[in-house]
Amino acid sequence: MSTTLITGGTVVSSTGRSEADVLIDGEKVVAVLAPGSTLLGHDLKSSVDTVLDTAGKYVVPGGIDAHTHMQMPFGGTEASDTFETGTRAAAWGGTTTIVDFAIQKYGERVMDALNAWHDKASGQCAIDYGFHQIIGDVNDDSLKAMEGLIGEGISSYKLFMAYPGVFYSDDAQIFKAMRVGADTGLMTMMHAENGPAIDAMVAELLAQGKTDPYYHGVARAWQMEEEATHRAIMLANLTGAPLYVVHVSAKQAVAQLAAARNNGQNVFGETCPQYLYLSLEDQLGAPGFEGAKWVCSTPLRSKLEHHQDHMWQALRTNDLQMVSTDHCPFCMKGQKDMGLGDFSKIPNGIGGVEHRMNLIYQGVADGKIPLERWVEITSTTPARMFGMYGRKGVITPGADADVVIYNPAGHTSLGLEKTHHMNMDYSAWEGFEIDGHVDTVLSRGRVIVDDNQYLGSKTHGQYLRRAPSQYLI
Amino acid sequence: MSTTLITGGTVVSSTGRSEADVLIDGEKVVAVLAPGSTLLGHDLKSSVDTVLDTAGKYVVPGGIDAHTHMQMPFGGTEASDTFETGTRAAAWGGTTTIVDFAIQKYGERVMDALNAWHDKASGQCAIDYGFHQIIGDVNDDSLKAMEGLIGEGISSYKLFMAYPGVFYSDDAQIFKAMRVGADTGLMTMMHAENGPAIDAMVAELLAQGKTDPYYHGVARAWQMEEEATHRAIMLANLTGAPLYVVHVSAKQAVAQLAAARNNGQNVFGETCPQYLYLSLEDQLGAPGFEGAKWVCSTPLRSKLEHHQDHMWQALRTNDLQMVSTDHCPFCMKGQKDMGLGDFSKIPNGIGGVEHRMNLIYQGVADGKIPLERWVEITSTTPARMFGMYGRKGVITPGADADVVIYNPAGHTSLGLEKTHHMNMDYSAWEGFEIDGHVDTVLSRGRVIVDDNQYLGSKTHGQYLRRAPSQYLI
Amino acid sequence: MSTTLITGGTVVSSTGRSEADVLIDGEKVVAVLAPGSTLLGHDLKSSVDTVLDTAGKYVVPGGIDAHTHMQMPFGGTEASDTFETGTRAAAWGGTTTIVDFAIQKYGERVMDALNAWHDKASGQCAIDYGFHQIIGDVNDDSLKAMEGLIGEGISSYKLFMAYPGVFYSDDAQIFKAMRVGADTGLMTMMHAENGPAIDAMVAELLAQGKTDPYYHGVARAWQMEEEATHRAIMLANLTGAPLYVVHVSAKQAVAQLAAARNNGQNVFGETCPQYLYLSLEDQLGAPGFEGAKWVCSTPLRSKLEHHQDHMWQALRTNDLQMVSTDHCPFCMKGQKDMGLGDFSKIPNGIGGVEHRMNLIYQGVADGKIPLERWVEITSTTPARMFGMYGRKGVITPGADADVVIYNPAGHTSLGLEKTHHMNMDYSAWEGFEIDGHVDTVLSRGRVIVDDNQYLGSKTHGQYLRRAPSQYLI
Amino acid sequence: MSTTLITGGTVVSSTGRSEADVLIDGEKVVAVLAPGSTLLGHDLKSSVDTVLDTAGKYVVPGGIDAHTHMQMPFGGTEASDTFETGTRAAAWGGTTTIVDFAIQKYGERVMDALNAWHDKASGQCAIDYGFHQIIGDVNDDSLKAMEGLIGEGISSYKLFMAYPGVFYSDDAQIFKAMRVGADTGLMTMMHAENGPAIDAMVAELLAQGKTDPYYHGVARAWQMEEEATHRAIMLANLTGAPLYVVHVSAKQAVAQLAAARNNGQNVFGETCPQYLYLSLEDQLGAPGFEGAKWVCSTPLRSKLEHHQDHMWQALRTNDLQMVSTDHCPFCMKGQKDMGLGDFSKIPNGIGGVEHRMNLIYQGVADGKIPLERWVEITSTTPARMFGMYGRKGVITPGADADVVIYNPAGHTSLGLEKTHHMNMDYSAWEGFEIDGHVDTVLSRGRVIVDDNQYLGSKTHGQYLRRAPSQYLI
Repeated sequence: MSTTLITGGTVVSSTGRSEADVLIDGEKVVAVLAPGSTLLGHDLKSSVDTVLDTAGKYVVPGGIDAHTHMQMPFGGTEASDTFETGTRAAAWGGTTTIVDFAIQKYGERVMDALNAWHDKASGQCAIDYGFHQIIGDVNDDSLKAMEGLIGEGISSYKLFMAYPGVFYSDDAQIFKAMRVGADTGLMTMMHAENGPAIDAMVAELLAQGKTDPYYHGVARAWQMEEEATHRAIMLANLTGAPLYVVHVSAKQAVAQLAAARNNGQNVFGETCPQYLYLSLEDQLGAPGFEGAKWVCSTPLRSKLEHHQDHMWQALRTNDLQMVSTDHCPFCMKGQKDMGLGDFSKIPNGIGGVEHRMNLIYQGVADGKIPLERWVEITSTTPARMFGMYGRKGVITPGADADVVIYNPAGHTSLGLEKTHHMNMDYSAWEGFEIDGHVDTVLSRGRVIVDDNQYLGSKTHGQYLRRAPSQYLI
Repeated sequence: MSTTLITGGTVVSSTGRSEADVLIDGEKVVAVLAPGSTLLGHDLKSSVDTVLDTAGKYVVPGGIDAHTHMQMPFGGTEASDTFETGTRAAAWGGTTTIVDFAIQKYGERVMDALNAWHDKASGQCAIDYGFHQIIGDVNDDSLKAMEGLIGEGISSYKLFMAYPGVFYSDDAQIFKAMRVGADTGLMTMMHAENGPAIDAMVAELLAQGKTDPYYHGVARAWQMEEEATHRAIMLANLTGAPLYVVHVSAKQAVAQLAAARNNGQNVFGETCPQYLYLSLEDQLGAPGFEGAKWVCSTPLRSKLEHHQDHMWQALRTNDLQMVSTDHCPFCMKGQKDMGLGDFSKIPNGIGGVEHRMNLIYQGVADGKIPLERWVEITSTTPARMFGMYGRKGVITPGADADVVIYNPAGHTSLGLEKTHHMNMDYSAWEGFEIDGHVDTVLSRGRVIVDDNQYLGSKTHGQYLRRAPSQYLI
Repeated sequence: MSTTLITGGTVVSSTGRSEADVLIDGEKVVAVLAPGSTLLGHDLKSSVDTVLDTAGKYVVPGGIDAHTHMQMPFGGTEASDTFETGTRAAAWGGTTTIVDFAIQKYGERVMDALNAWHDKASGQCAIDYGFHQIIGDVNDDSLKAMEGLIGEGISSYKLFMAYPGVFYSDDAQIFKAMRVGADTGLMTMMHAENGPAIDAMVAELLAQGKTDPYYHGVARAWQMEEEATHRAIMLANLTGAPLYVVHVSAKQAVAQLAAARNNGQNVFGETCPQYLYLSLEDQLGAPGFEGAKWVCSTPLRSKLEHHQDHMWQALRTNDLQMVSTDHCPFCMKGQKDMGLGDFSKIPNGIGGVEHRMNLIYQGVADGKIPLERWVEITSTTPARMFGMYGRKGVITPGADADVVIYNPAGHTSLGLEKTHHMNMDYSAWEGFEIDGHVDTVLSRGRVIVDDNQYLGSKTHGQYLRRAPSQYLI
Repeated sequence: MSTTLITGGTVVSSTGRSEADVLIDGEKVVAVLAPGSTLLGHDLKSSVDTVLDTAGKYVVPGGIDAHTHMQMPFGGTEASDTFETGTRAAAWGGTTTIVDFAIQKYGERVMDALNAWHDKASGQCAIDYGFHQIIGDVNDDSLKAMEGLIGEGISSYKLFMAYPGVFYSDDAQIFKAMRVGADTGLMTMMHAENGPAIDAMVAELLAQGKTDPYYHGVARAWQMEEEATHRAIMLANLTGAPLYVVHVSAKQAVAQLAAARNNGQNVFGETCPQYLYLSLEDQLGAPGFEGAKWVCSTPLRSKLEHHQDHMWQALRTNDLQMVSTDHCPFCMKGQKDMGLGDFSKIPNGIGGVEHRMNLIYQGVADGKIPLERWVEITSTTPARMFGMYGRKGVITPGADADVVIYNPAGHTSLGLEKTHHMNMDYSAWEGFEIDGHVDTVLSRGRVIVDDNQYLGSKTHGQYLRRAPSQYLI
């Protein structure tokens, strides 16, 4: 087992900063120490195998992306990142844990689905990974299976109010699943969009000849996100289930979450980088078929309605608790282009697992959120929300030594020919410039990225058993 | 300089727990380490002067009570705790920092007032102390003086919307002061009650012969707290000043704060233990003159309206950010009894600096808030809110070694003949039983309370220069 | 054609009162005149066939009950009032117009359904009647049929978010129907309860052995009404359809309506007498199977939550616009008793068409609403809402002479052996005492009730073609 | 006494329209009749002195402007319209009743002030007039005098939260006055702006050299209107006083009113034509000193914030109940120009009593409100709100024959050289074009305007004793 001393930097937690050294022994943090590399007269620097000098840099807990879809089957194709390529790209960007979604499809058994996902991921990951369980077919059998999830290290499951005929659960199914969720201590995650109404609107638009990617955003109107968010909240209110709404993009949906939370209900929401920077007009409405690059659901919202500013504000005031990517990449050629002439056939998804830490740090550089809040919404809260805290999300003795050394004086250019290790033939973030840089990444004590070099291996990442959320009361 | 190792316990932060040891060298924490008392083969236990075995106990940052009034002049008398007796009582209860209020009275110069408070406190305190500055007379001179406060280590000032003729500021004065506050980086603290209207109602009640302590609560109706809270919020909105509302007791005032915060405004609120446990009916309405014990402003609220439950809920959901005591003790004999036959002459105040940590911990024991939230609302957030984080509010290398060893298996009985070290001839908390116990208290590395013995000294506590709030954006 | 002079009373409109005479010629009001029975020297009293002396009484427009279900098929039985018995009972109580619901069932054609309802009602009604159209099967054919409704004198249609497998429309169907409604100028009426989730809860309760009528109220929780109300509002927001929510019983649903209306959306709500007076505890929770008498949907709400007071308040402040009965009577014997041992099998409905005018007048007598508001919510607004104003809902030249002479000094005792002409073997209002009395009722100029005698005939009532709602902008 | 028959037109009330004739005998309406001019065989046309043929026109109750300030002293000058010139201009525009404000100034006795106003108005008015009483100095004497107001025919009084040192009442004074108002049955009218804070902001702006009229709007920020509105609501809540907020211009203030009303509180609000059409940018920000024309308080609001649209919406949904003018004209030369170089010295006020009926009718023509709502907000509700209904606000037997014959096919051009009879040297409405025209105006049975000719006299108008508001519950 090797030892490492990270010295000279500023350790940033979700509550503040301190000039401190971090001592790693094997896979674990074993001490956080006053700077100087001595302790009670013992010289630490000379006792360790590796010394990382981090003067002028931030030492932060590795990023946790709690919402990814590696090689997910969707609409007749499959998300283009495998666990291998996707987790490697994540590592490049300072993310050291992902929580991916195992999918029970209609007619399938939950445990079979989960095993299939274990098979896909096992031995393929550069970083540690856990699973949420998607319940795509709520029935007596799957409800029974939900009771066994915590035993599998899975403390959260997800339902869809969208995609009728695919993942969709009706309100009776949601009620039943939430009941089990509440009784079992599982966090209910929700894709909150009114699928049936959206599909009716899609048909209406297509019948009017409105087939461009732009209409994907029109069809999935904010009213349908707000509505489903509120419905999920009321079903959670009735059943007592804690609720976590994924990929919130409409300010009105945020207002529903905030009102419920002010009212004492245990509800949470994440947003994603795309909803903080991109818009219906500028991206989905790009000329020709270009907008297909940014077709995802919930969709990019209108900049005329200032949703983006509201998302930043909600992150600041904790009306939204964290940022995930909903990483679900597709190539333009052979995948996105399935929807030429019919936006409804464009695979839904944007790739971003690599860039989340940088894109949210840019909010710090721009004065939108404090530095500590960056750590909180990208790492500490995800860890607490999904039962990983202690091992992940914090730099403290006993924690896994997942550490990112971030250089605020550095710079990162995003784009296909620049920083881009995801398996996509385009970048959704082409041309974005970041005032900071991921210098070094450690996963369980091992340096996997350093000085713009990837030093990891696909056999390094381990399955992470998760405990119940810290936020159950 | 002596060294101490706290070993075997569970270190609790505002975000989680870890089994860890804490090493103290002199006044500072120098390391947080994996348990076992060795580091890279070095045996720490034998290297330190003192070992504190904390198996089965919580190791938490010392409590910070950000709202006390030691020996404050009020209504022709003076709060009965001196800095000596008050800070000693605080230490007994696990509070290692107070922030008291220096009071500029009408006609006085701010710096004279501040110096007077330094004179009162200096060399008298068992624990560290800081000051907020009350501006009781907003005028050109005091507005100018406000600009110098940060240089004095004071990053917050307080105004009163109540007490016309005493501390009261009208809306023009508030506007001007907030403007300076916003420009200078001071946190504006507000006593939010509509004093003029309340005084009119007091006169009305007295004229009707309603003179009992109970009518103190009737006169200071929730409408007048809600109104003033909203007014303060709008003046802050207009001037850009961050706002912190003290002693929030009405659920409607909480709703105003929550709405403003959801709306992106930088507003905060504290509540106090009395608003979490005591009521208009049970305490203020006690037979005879007994209710005088609990005359404080804002007043205790009606239990029929469920304010108490809402306060706990708001603490859980972060609609309120922290708990202070508003410690302002008066004896029944010779002080409170000035209001026999006229409730408006009862000195306003309740003593509680000693019991805050225990009373809020009881909320953990009762399942109302998580353990981490106890640390957050009693120590970490006060430190962040008022510019003390890093030295206070957290157990991390470089921090002052202010540590409380709390025994969840212990028990504490509150009451005059039991646990009570405040200089009062009654206890506002008589008969309360707490499922936990403050076993040991360290202040800047020194054990000042241990095993129900006070080991501190009034020359130990130091003046604490505070930086601007962490929450300015 | 005979002429009538109503003289000496106080004509009450929705905006005020005046001492005035009303002259009727044939079926129509031809003049409203200053009292004295002369006009420009002409003596009117001696010129008319009939003089009704109404000194000390209120002369008001005949009541309009915009929500009845005569002989409606439900759960294997049929509502126990025929058009003959139901409209006669209505007349007894001062209601001179009903709007009943023609029901398109699953698999049926809309026009066939409408014709069937015409067949049931034609030649059977004591008073005039119109129809709303229930669309129980939204499909291409019925959507097309909706476009023809206004031509049939039907300006409103109703959907159900409850009763899956019976009348239920899913959100795609609602979206499509609302689109047609918005384009065609039809008012969308909505039964707003989340049927699928309620049915899941019903199953849960029955499985727990909770089979009493009381659990009907538990299963149909306020959350499910509030949720569906909000969902209907958002679908209406998206499609531009004006929306009218029927039988609102939960204060939280009122709040949703009020918020939408404050926000500029064209939404309305009715409540019913049962939600103003009766409760979950006192009626649904009556001993044994007694509660079955009051099984209706939405259900009676808990008095502990003060819904009843909120309904009165909402009527006063116009957050609710009108009162209908949702008259849907079933006998205990042979009908309600189908649900012995299983509350879900109790036919849903309460009879009340006879008592609405009296029950709401009692709100005037009790000081809950002004006299004018009684006229407005029982007659004028229903006429405006559903395209009958001018002929109905007002006493003005050209209007049908539908007039009620109401005696504020009279008294009415409700109950099976007292005032009860509905075809039910029990009264939902047994024991209620009303401070007022319906003395005389005229329908289209003909006295049909006078001095506690029924003088009408089932061939008198005519089908009423309705124009679009006055509230379309 | 002469008789008049208005025949062939459409009588429009606040609830609907009917083809009807109106018969006037002397000063009163004596009948509303079916068209045709016969009644029971009597030919009316030949029996009357005058026949007014109104085919194709609307016959509506005369306008009531419940907020005017004729020859009001303000800032060292006096509003430029006398009762003579102002009421004549009102008549020209279809307004047949004004309610003006008698002003008790500081140090004055209420009855002296009221008598002074009677002296100014008596024998000078073209139309009927009533008074509200301004209480500019709340003290024991004026509080006592308030109890006598109803005996004087005055059922409403007004306080100012703005203008410290002039009309301003502090919150203690408001509390006391509202208490008397609640006990006595007076409507409390409120100028809701936070005067002290606004004055502080005015001083700040002037000190920065910001002296143009535009800064009048900046200084009186929406926050200060919203705040005062909320404060007035809470004081009314506490005292039980019904509340009417004058000249609402900020959408946030509307939201406060709506929330209070949804909550069951008896609160109301008016807006004025200027807040429906004019803006901070286009008018107050006009080049040079031009903006002075539109200096009034509350000020014109920013069009960027869409207040104007919200005012129309609030009128439609009844979140605002009526439209008055706050008519308070000043000439540019010799009056407005007192504020050259210092916007705070510009007399506050806009003249508009002549144009209200036309400007609000334009909202009908533009599809913003229905025709009936025009009648309601300009006449019927003012009558009900301020205790005039029955005599004013409705065309019904017994009412004063105040009638406007409005031609929807006509056209009216506003402007100094066009339609302008107010005593001002400019028009605030220069260039506005109206799709409609006031053809004929009757006041108490007498034609005072017809075919663009003024036929009235200053001895015609009478003092109108008002009863308590219809809206006291």
